[in-house]
Amino acid sequence: MTTQELVAQIQKKKSFLCIGLDVDLDKIPPYLLKEEDPIFAFNKAIIDATHHLCVSYKPNIAFYEAYGLKGWKSLEKTINYLNENYPEIFTIADAKRGDIGNTSTMYAKAFFKDLVFDSVTVAPYMGKDSVEPFLAFKDKHTIMLALTSNEGAFDFQTKQIDDKELYKHVLETSKSWKNAKNLMYVVGATKAEYFKEIRKIVPDSFLLVPGVGAQGGNLQEVCKYGLSKNIGLLINSSRGIIYASKEPNFAEEAAKKALELQVQMAAVLN
Amino acid sequence: MTTQELVAQIQKKKSFLCIGLDVDLDKIPPYLLKEEDPIFAFNKAIIDATHHLCVSYKPNIAFYEAYGLKGWKSLEKTINYLNENYPEIFTIADAKRGDIGNTSTMYAKAFFKDLVFDSVTVAPYMGKDSVEPFLAFKDKHTIMLALTSNEGAFDFQTKQIDDKELYKHVLETSKSWKNAKNLMYVVGATKAEYFKEIRKIVPDSFLLVPGVGAQGGNLQEVCKYGLSKNIGLLINSSRGIIYASKEPNFAEEAAKKALELQVQMAAVLN
Repeated sequence: MTTQELVAQIQKKKSFLCIGLDVDLDKIPPYLLKEEDPIFAFNKAIIDATHHLCVSYKPNIAFYEAYGLKGWKSLEKTINYLNENYPEIFTIADAKRGDIGNTSTMYAKAFFKDLVFDSVTVAPYMGKDSVEPFLAFKDKHTIMLALTSNEGAFDFQTKQIDDKELYKHVLETSKSWKNAKNLMYVVGATKAEYFKEIRKIVPDSFLLVPGVGAQGGNLQEVCKYGLSKNIGLLINSSRGIIYASKEPNFAEEAAKKALELQVQMAAVLN
Repeated sequence: MTTQELVAQIQKKKSFLCIGLDVDLDKIPPYLLKEEDPIFAFNKAIIDATHHLCVSYKPNIAFYEAYGLKGWKSLEKTINYLNENYPEIFTIADAKRGDIGNTSTMYAKAFFKDLVFDSVTVAPYMGKDSVEPFLAFKDKHTIMLALTSNEGAFDFQTKQIDDKELYKHVLETSKSWKNAKNLMYVVGATKAEYFKEIRKIVPDSFLLVPGVGAQGGNLQEVCKYGLSKNIGLLINSSRGIIYASKEPNFAEEAAKKALELQVQMAAVLN
């Protein structure tokens, strides 16, 4: 999917919501556990109920790997279901991968070719040659961690190197990498004022923003500083939406939570 | 597996060799492709031929994920085969994972509980709360990236923060994390003199060292600066051993390459 197609979808749906499919068998409605594939059954219901309110789904791969072969199968069914039924959706494999060159190519194949995701999240620690293999895929997007929303972000990411923090070096440096136009960045919503600084470095890039809702970030604040002329934001919510209820009407309740965010987004876009 | 058991095995085998099982279907002997599970058939042959010369195997997870469900099955068969037949071997899931707290717990479950590995590699960028969930597992080891062996290591890892480079901050900071005794570190062999500095920060920790052989690092140099009083080194070789030959005797040829390294290690240990 091209960035233009993503932007067109945002404008059509008046939404830049990404829904995180972080499916934990301990948290889904218990009656689903009787299904042959409870994870997929849960995802399918959530997707069918919310696809018109969001532009993106983001399964966090950890939640599938934790269930081994079965989990991998649920992931495969989920991405196939999305691609077959809602091809307009921008799909994100939240995998935070990164390794030396030839190995990153294998990860890129896993998420772009075997599972047909539009994008994958990667970690920057190993530098240019660990990320460029992902960037080499045409019409695919690589979403690199810049500033994350967890407490540990302050261990290294905000440490000062010369004149600026590590995460700013990550943003700045990556702009010169081959096919950098395929880069997006993860920027947590815990401190909205950071977005002002970040937009000076990457004025046009799409930012994937976790931490709105369950983690305490504020949507209006993020938009105030983070919106670009091309919108440039994907706001993710996971637990706040998908675990809205454990009752049989869980998908409708999830849609209500998604609608609350979509309405706020429509107001921002108008 | 405890560190003491690992050290005892090293002393018994006179080896601190780790063999990387990075299986690429384009590089294995072509006749194996007729097998039902070529990756496992290859791994089994390599393991049976080399287990007495090494103390550890390290499948890089990317090479399995790239083949989707089939690859994940090959990985599962490989770790089960190791645990059933060579329980003395220290197994490493080279996954370079890392995410916010509850998500890292899911990854830890994937590699420590579902697949029963002794250890997993993780990335430090997201800090303390992304790594501690791995450290919480008793008798399991978490091997964190410090200084990697690729060119991109110089993009961020060697950048100066206050008085020292980022990778030294990573080493230093992690020592105060909960259950830090379960930490080991990845330190590339491309510049042996770095080990001198690293041993000042982590005098006793085990270091997993890629980059000897195919990537150009020198075993003697690494040992000169890197050995601790508890040995404290696992030297990894992947391509240099497992792809020694594409002929039906590939496993014997791999064993010859492993023996060359083991003999050098025995000399160092004596």
